[in-house]
Amino acid sequence: MAQQVRDVVEQYVKLVGSGPTEEIVDLYAADATVEDPIGTDIKRGHDAIREFYDVIANLDRETVLKPETIRIAGNHAAFMFTIVTKFGDQRFTLTPIDVMEFDDDGKIISMRAYWTPEDMSSEAV
Amino acid sequence: MAQQVRDVVEQYVKLVGSGPTEEIVDLYAADATVEDPIGTDIKRGHDAIREFYDVIANLDRETVLKPETIRIAGNHAAFMFTIVTKFGDQRFTLTPIDVMEFDDDGKIISMRAYWTPEDMSSEAV
Repeated sequence: MAQQVRDVVEQYVKLVGSGPTEEIVDLYAADATVEDPIGTDIKRGHDAIREFYDVIANLDRETVLKPETIRIAGNHAAFMFTIVTKFGDQRFTLTPIDVMEFDDDGKIISMRAYWTPEDMSSEAV
Repeated sequence: MAQQVRDVVEQYVKLVGSGPTEEIVDLYAADATVEDPIGTDIKRGHDAIREFYDVIANLDRETVLKPETIRIAGNHAAFMFTIVTKFGDQRFTLTPIDVMEFDDDGKIISMRAYWTPEDMSSEAV
């Protein structure tokens, strides 16, 4: 299970940086939930999750997993990664901690992200 | 709230490294839960939580928060820290990701820790 969970985490971060959205959605179980960041509306199910990731689909972006932060406990994982998004003439950098729970097939059944707008830095490019 | 949460996280990591147990317990709400690591029995309430932290109370140990990892979202926090414990002629090092939820008074109402035994390294001292 630990290796499978690790593989999905690596795949997830890679796909968030590259797309396509549909491959991100496929990492989730059909009735999975996404709360990103914690405190915002919970997206439930593939349609809501697709809509969530589609927001960044057309942005110039890249992601880097911090592999030394991956911690796995049974079917749960926590990790940090950095996402850099270019929007207009600004580059935004955010490094959240995400936690995920997985089902026995290695599909994500819940994702919650720990960050606030204050954690996001921006610079002109 | 964010500063209060950050203060409790810093206080928590410091006290886990130094004790006394009672001051750790005081950071928790009366009916709080601790699941450390995720997948083990959940300790609920001050008595069970005291018993949990008492296990390390008499060990030579130290903790270091990784402040650059603290992420706060509303009344939730996630962070990494390192705990080094000396036991006999071995020194054990572990760096979990802990997540916490807080009530409006800044008391911890739940703590869950992401790590497995494989994350622990040991060396002779």
